[in-house]
Amino acid sequence: MSDHKVEFVDVAAMAQWIQKDGVGNIIAGMVDFLEEDFKKWQSFDKIPRVASHTPFGVIELMPTSDNVTYSFKYVNGHPSNPARGYQTVTAFGLLADVDNGYPVFLAEMTLLTALRTAAVSAMVAKHLARKDSRKMAMVGTGSQSEFQALGMRAVLGIEDLAVYDVDPAAIEKFRRNLEPLGFRIHAASSVDEAVADADIITTCTADKQQAKVLLNSQVKPGVHLNAIGGDCPGKTELESEILDRSTVFVEFPPQTRIEGEIQQKDPDFPVVEFWKVLTGEEPGRVSDEQITLFDSVGFAIADFSGLRYARAATQGTDLQQFIDLVANPDDPKDLFSLVNVNVPVG
Amino acid sequence: MSDHKVEFVDVAAMAQWIQKDGVGNIIAGMVDFLEEDFKKWQSFDKIPRVASHTPFGVIELMPTSDNVTYSFKYVNGHPSNPARGYQTVTAFGLLADVDNGYPVFLAEMTLLTALRTAAVSAMVAKHLARKDSRKMAMVGTGSQSEFQALGMRAVLGIEDLAVYDVDPAAIEKFRRNLEPLGFRIHAASSVDEAVADADIITTCTADKQQAKVLLNSQVKPGVHLNAIGGDCPGKTELESEILDRSTVFVEFPPQTRIEGEIQQKDPDFPVVEFWKVLTGEEPGRVSDEQITLFDSVGFAIADFSGLRYARAATQGTDLQQFIDLVANPDDPKDLFSLVNVNVPVG
Repeated sequence: MSDHKVEFVDVAAMAQWIQKDGVGNIIAGMVDFLEEDFKKWQSFDKIPRVASHTPFGVIELMPTSDNVTYSFKYVNGHPSNPARGYQTVTAFGLLADVDNGYPVFLAEMTLLTALRTAAVSAMVAKHLARKDSRKMAMVGTGSQSEFQALGMRAVLGIEDLAVYDVDPAAIEKFRRNLEPLGFRIHAASSVDEAVADADIITTCTADKQQAKVLLNSQVKPGVHLNAIGGDCPGKTELESEILDRSTVFVEFPPQTRIEGEIQQKDPDFPVVEFWKVLTGEEPGRVSDEQITLFDSVGFAIADFSGLRYARAATQGTDLQQFIDLVANPDDPKDLFSLVNVNVPVG
Repeated sequence: MSDHKVEFVDVAAMAQWIQKDGVGNIIAGMVDFLEEDFKKWQSFDKIPRVASHTPFGVIELMPTSDNVTYSFKYVNGHPSNPARGYQTVTAFGLLADVDNGYPVFLAEMTLLTALRTAAVSAMVAKHLARKDSRKMAMVGTGSQSEFQALGMRAVLGIEDLAVYDVDPAAIEKFRRNLEPLGFRIHAASSVDEAVADADIITTCTADKQQAKVLLNSQVKPGVHLNAIGGDCPGKTELESEILDRSTVFVEFPPQTRIEGEIQQKDPDFPVVEFWKVLTGEEPGRVSDEQITLFDSVGFAIADFSGLRYARAATQGTDLQQFIDLVANPDDPKDLFSLVNVNVPVG
């Protein structure tokens, strides 16, 4: 009946694609798409995500558009989910043609968000971390952690990891997943121990609270901080004084000021929009002593890039299904023809 | 891999359901769900829809939640689409559990929006039109028109229609679709002729402009106006003076003041929130001379009701498919297990 089918990549197909092409290769390829889109940042329609907060967690819609393609992501964040056997974060997303408003591509984005978040971290670290960076500390080894490690290896060549999590089982899971892939992993017994020799520190924890996962005294000059976990009002990871010593790079300031580490600071706290580093409008790292801080909260344009990349990589393959999501009667003014029992539908 | 499947009703299944149960029966049943949800209006999370406007049209996301269930709808509005063979409006929507943030039900909503829009119009007319209303005029006989007529018949018993459209082919289509279903249809050659004897006037046109589809001189005392088409900034249908003579009922004032007929008026133009008529906090129609005007723009809570009704009606039937949209690994902290080639996924 409807000749306009929407391409669809479900969870199983997304997993097959990632197994086939590899997390590292996909992240490296996605970084190219991200850089392309971040460089044309000003041509995008940008709004802070639309959040529905409840005591259980948050459900968010993240739309954006470059006036040719529209995208949005549905994503939840429920810190108490793992204790009940559910994912903290699940997501799916969509691309549509701006020209006629018709959806064209639907995809699971729980896995794709993990890839794009790691790809954004890798892209930013590529431009901001010291060129001689060799060791990364990771605080928090939950669902996002393996993707972060594989992204940093694909883009920066990092293979030495010192990791810490309050849950020893999560550290063990991380080691089990990544040691076979060639990483050298030190399971630290404290944050102090994990960050002692780090060139890059990735914080990625899930507690919905003002936490101090990383203290100012633990941050040495020259380090690049990749702060992933503080991404929601009332949810931060860094001791406030760290921000005063750092140059803070952000995605979209109006959203980061609400959700990021800088929610701890005044509304005029100085930040650098990362896309300006890519276009050359702002410097990136200017010295080996500088502390660079990526206050990552995740912005819709990265989902746009991730969906665009996943669509391009799966188009024309068996990984895509076609679903019947858009009603498209022969006579566009005769929607009723689709349900008219006098004229049975073929 | 993922044991959490999302119920899915596609376009073909939605059409089959409507053919099986009938437009009128579904709208009558949906009115019960709408009244239930509108009565607990204050318990819903409410925001104006999130719109992305371009020269081609608009793409909108319409979320809401009653803190148990979350819903959103994706919907476009592209007035130039029919001339190019596309629907002006297409849509799909989703229900999710607020408790864990997981999607549970996905459905096409091009057809479902037509049903819910007609159901809202019928619900409001049931409470606001004169009890002796027998004749409806319809200005605009596009995709929404048959659903409006069948809804008004199901809920108010209206069978006499006088219709006008600038496109004679659209009138002919309307007559062809509805005369076999028992309506008495007068194809008028002007708006004046269509509205001359009307108890209820439904305006439902698609031009994105400040139009005067209905003039003040054409509106007689006692009529109920069901104004559907003015639903977007810069898009209105009624001559402004009509509003001054009417009691104006709206869904959600912050959205209607931006999108509805009352965008022609000052921000403090008096309106009645329709849900208060249902709870008895505000009177509905108070005299046979009063002009009641439903300034309908479409609000997320009606989509919530429509999705809830469609889910209940199709659950456990062959009309539903199950799609693999939510990644749900056995260990919720081990998303990577879904893509780990060292541990093949079963």
